[in-house]
Amino acid sequence: METSAAAKDFSPSKISADGARIQFLPCVRCRESVPALCRSGPGEQAVAVVLIREDSGMEGAFSPFPGQGGALAVYALAMQIVLFEPEIPPNTGNVARLCAATDTELHLIEPLGFSLEDRYLKRAGLDYWPHVRLRVWPDFAAYRQDAGRGRRLVMSSSRSGENIRYFRFTRDDALVFGPETRGLPPEILEASPHRVRIPIRSCVRSLNLSTAAGILLFQALLGSGAIEDLP
Amino acid sequence: METSAAAKDFSPSKISADGARIQFLPCVRCRESVPALCRSGPGEQAVAVVLIREDSGMEGAFSPFPGQGGALAVYALAMQIVLFEPEIPPNTGNVARLCAATDTELHLIEPLGFSLEDRYLKRAGLDYWPHVRLRVWPDFAAYRQDAGRGRRLVMSSSRSGENIRYFRFTRDDALVFGPETRGLPPEILEASPHRVRIPIRSCVRSLNLSTAAGILLFQALLGSGAIEDLP
Repeated sequence: METSAAAKDFSPSKISADGARIQFLPCVRCRESVPALCRSGPGEQAVAVVLIREDSGMEGAFSPFPGQGGALAVYALAMQIVLFEPEIPPNTGNVARLCAATDTELHLIEPLGFSLEDRYLKRAGLDYWPHVRLRVWPDFAAYRQDAGRGRRLVMSSSRSGENIRYFRFTRDDALVFGPETRGLPPEILEASPHRVRIPIRSCVRSLNLSTAAGILLFQALLGSGAIEDLP
Repeated sequence: METSAAAKDFSPSKISADGARIQFLPCVRCRESVPALCRSGPGEQAVAVVLIREDSGMEGAFSPFPGQGGALAVYALAMQIVLFEPEIPPNTGNVARLCAATDTELHLIEPLGFSLEDRYLKRAGLDYWPHVRLRVWPDFAAYRQDAGRGRRLVMSSSRSGENIRYFRFTRDDALVFGPETRGLPPEILEASPHRVRIPIRSCVRSLNLSTAAGILLFQALLGSGAIEDLP
């Protein structure tokens, strides 16, 4: 298990060894990122994330995992879609709609090829924007140090990835997509050993970004069992 | 098994009972639709379609299924995507790209909300148009009487369909999608008892058409085993 320095500061001895991991999620009170004890894995029927703040004075107030500190809240765990430097507004709009429809977090890494007020972006998203869990980051490092901390990054790569029919997704994967015209650059791809590709014929270079995001996300939701949480 | 009058004329006694069906596919020579003996089903590793013309004078010339007539060619069987009265050019462009990437037939039912020369349509399809197996039909009946004959129609319906995680696709399904703003009208939905839906939260009415097509098609390719034919 990979834990960041900050996560280690958070008394890792309290973390049970049976599959729990540390993630950073916004505190339900102050919205700052706090360490969270996370239980998840393929095939599990339900997933809970426990948000804990050491200075909350609430240790033991509610503890679904006895002896492991207090909890501020129990969260349903969501997948993440990360769009690295997206270029075309309706694509991001369609991915936002996909994320709202599945309660998936959407993280955009700047620079964006458009304004978030772009009318084509909003048109694709229609009236779903209030339901999109959207965060924008100045660069990939900022995302990784906060919302991406402790997440397994699954890189979408049309060239070097493992075929989606063999790849084993988990319920809290972060699916990372590159810019429409360039794909993920090497320095971002190197951030994770996990790469996945959608099998397509060689006459087509790649699928449309929002089509690819839909295929990968639903394959991940189905393969990890997270689809059970949808109606 | 449903066979059309024309199919019955084609000596159905020659058709074996063990899962073979009659479909109409373009003759490899004249491109006219001809009856084809088709073997397919979930879980099969390979699927062959044998094109047979009664007036070909080639009976017995090449017969992978002995005693069942001659064959003009053995075809790999492809799924079909049918867009009923699509309205928005880049959506159809993206679906065309998806179809080229997976060797899926694309059937458009008129009226279309755009010209096939629309630059947004072509931009989405980029340079993949020569690889798209595209046919355009004046109405749904014309499609059904020709390329759709003998095909199982699987209707995409966000309201009344069976969840994709339970639906059992076959390798030669025709996946039918309605117009972006309206969905499939009742008279088209009634053409088949097979309906499927992508599970989404109620706060979102539907997914973008090309995103939905990608999700359904890959679920069908994976579920039916047809994905094995892709690289």
